[in-house]
Amino acid sequence: MKAVVYRGARTLDIEERPEAEPGHGELGIAVAYTGICGTDLHIYHGDMDARVGTGAVIGHEMSGRVAAIGPGVTGWSVGQPVTVMPTRACGECPACVRGHSHICHRMQFLGIDSPGAMQSRWNVPADLVIALPEDLPLEQAALIEPTAVAVHDVRRADVGADDHVVVVGGGPVGVLIAAVAQGRGARVLLVEPDAFRREVAVELGIETLDPAAADVPATVEERTGGAGADIAFEVSGSAAGVVTAVDVLTTRGRLVMVAIHPQLRPVNLHRFFWRELELFGARLYQRDDMVEAVQLIATGAVPAQRLISRVGPVGTVADAFTALESGGSVMKVLIDWQEQAR
Amino acid sequence: MKAVVYRGARTLDIEERPEAEPGHGELGIAVAYTGICGTDLHIYHGDMDARVGTGAVIGHEMSGRVAAIGPGVTGWSVGQPVTVMPTRACGECPACVRGHSHICHRMQFLGIDSPGAMQSRWNVPADLVIALPEDLPLEQAALIEPTAVAVHDVRRADVGADDHVVVVGGGPVGVLIAAVAQGRGARVLLVEPDAFRREVAVELGIETLDPAAADVPATVEERTGGAGADIAFEVSGSAAGVVTAVDVLTTRGRLVMVAIHPQLRPVNLHRFFWRELELFGARLYQRDDMVEAVQLIATGAVPAQRLISRVGPVGTVADAFTALESGGSVMKVLIDWQEQAR
Ligand SMILES: [Zn+2]
Ligand SMILES: [Zn+2]
Repeated sequence: MKAVVYRGARTLDIEERPEAEPGHGELGIAVAYTGICGTDLHIYHGDMDARVGTGAVIGHEMSGRVAAIGPGVTGWSVGQPVTVMPTRACGECPACVRGHSHICHRMQFLGIDSPGAMQSRWNVPADLVIALPEDLPLEQAALIEPTAVAVHDVRRADVGADDHVVVVGGGPVGVLIAAVAQGRGARVLLVEPDAFRREVAVELGIETLDPAAADVPATVEERTGGAGADIAFEVSGSAAGVVTAVDVLTTRGRLVMVAIHPQLRPVNLHRFFWRELELFGARLYQRDDMVEAVQLIATGAVPAQRLISRVGPVGTVADAFTALESGGSVMKVLIDWQEQAR
Repeated sequence: MKAVVYRGARTLDIEERPEAEPGHGELGIAVAYTGICGTDLHIYHGDMDARVGTGAVIGHEMSGRVAAIGPGVTGWSVGQPVTVMPTRACGECPACVRGHSHICHRMQFLGIDSPGAMQSRWNVPADLVIALPEDLPLEQAALIEPTAVAVHDVRRADVGADDHVVVVGGGPVGVLIAAVAQGRGARVLLVEPDAFRREVAVELGIETLDPAAADVPATVEERTGGAGADIAFEVSGSAAGVVTAVDVLTTRGRLVMVAIHPQLRPVNLHRFFWRELELFGARLYQRDDMVEAVQLIATGAVPAQRLISRVGPVGTVADAFTALESGGSVMKVLIDWQEQAR
């Protein structure tokens, strides 16, 4: 079998490894497709060496089929299409004890804290595996995990029908949030400076705005009869994005913080006070979010296929990381692992 | 009658004025006591000249007795003890239409947008007047309005029994929030650098911490078995206070922004993301909050008397502002207007 191994900043090796059988309680999965997310890019840049370590197999966005069933595992059959919930909570920390196990303080993340999906054969605990409908294309299924992030974010904001929603940042997660919110009947405006990303969103039926060409708060005020947006999602990770997301909100409006902001950001707390605004951090998903994401993609409510910019064989993995870090004209890039099994 | 008139930055004149009868729908109130709040200090410093204008009678924390009943007003009797809800919503703006009339976009604030309480006879719309129990001392009743702020803040945080609560900032509103939260069964820690203010809080049975002498987040972590606080109130208005209030919170902890931050503040949004923290702006109160504040003071749950540092006649009003702006060894300073009526 083949595996993509992180060897240090900007170095990924493709290695031939012996195939291991699944252990007790595990399923062996023949990986079909893997995606690359922002966290994978952070690892690639060397920002997470202390946690990941060199020699690690990364990746956690994936789809595949059951290839082997470990001892003690029942209810699965070889060939069944699946994806994996890549997080495992400790069950004992303050977050877990209070019912927030999805943000466990000692979360084990597959592809970060233990071997990930970028290998042709992946052994994972069976309780983290999620069965997929037979007719869901496995390419699209590789987008279930990022879609679950969007489902969680939309749930956290309690988006309702007719709510005015502004999504700041039109990368894959921003577009997915826009699509999920629109599926709930919200009136969505996606703010994104990159023309390619706006184009993808428009193809999905999402209204967009270029912040370089328009006054975003003024536009939102006009769209909402002077009120402002009910909900904003900050998905850009930029200081300017934070300002925009705060400035568009109506009285008691809700801002969901989806992006990672590595530095402290200047925030207009006076506006929070004056309009009694609300801010909600949103990090990971729960199993329910994964299950809903499967349904949204399977029914076409989230048009996952149109977010896939390209699919390449394992040999193109370094190119894929390079394309993603340059940003611009690319949304999701998938690696196809199936030829390895043939 | 006498009135305190704002004449420009740091200039308050005490003027003799003719007593006007209440108009249609108004009650004429013989003012007993007035307090001074942060907004009054802002006006005094000249920071709100554009809104207030010179020649204005300021003040909105007060108690008094009905002295005259205007045409069309029923249900009141002369001599009845009262306080006044000093805000009036427009009923038509986006906030009002959505049920948030307490933060109306065109709020009329008595003592800012129309004549305030710092006069021996005050005519106000009868629907803003709140009846008080006969046995509630009028000195204490002058603290109903700031107590209503605290009630609103605690309600906004949804403080429950046994919740760990950190209040950052121990001025009058901070101490009132601590007292109201403690009354709900919460375990409260008040963080305040000033020794006098800590002393007042301790006298009220509130546990305090000097942030200059202790590591606040470490102390809170220890008190909460490593979890962190459920709720923090930022009442200090300082950049350091914001940092502390964010750093003490547990997973899904709630931060209530009570203080006015005139500048943008650096905020650790990554911690909001990582722990899925929540932030709630809290500005003004609703009538229910005023009514609850009356009960809390009347029953002694909020020991208002112990927050009153001193009471002086009208002639001491300039001294009172000077004492408050220097901060330090003073909590609430009241002006006694009753001699004017004698
Ligand atoms: Zn845990
Ligand atoms: Zn209004």
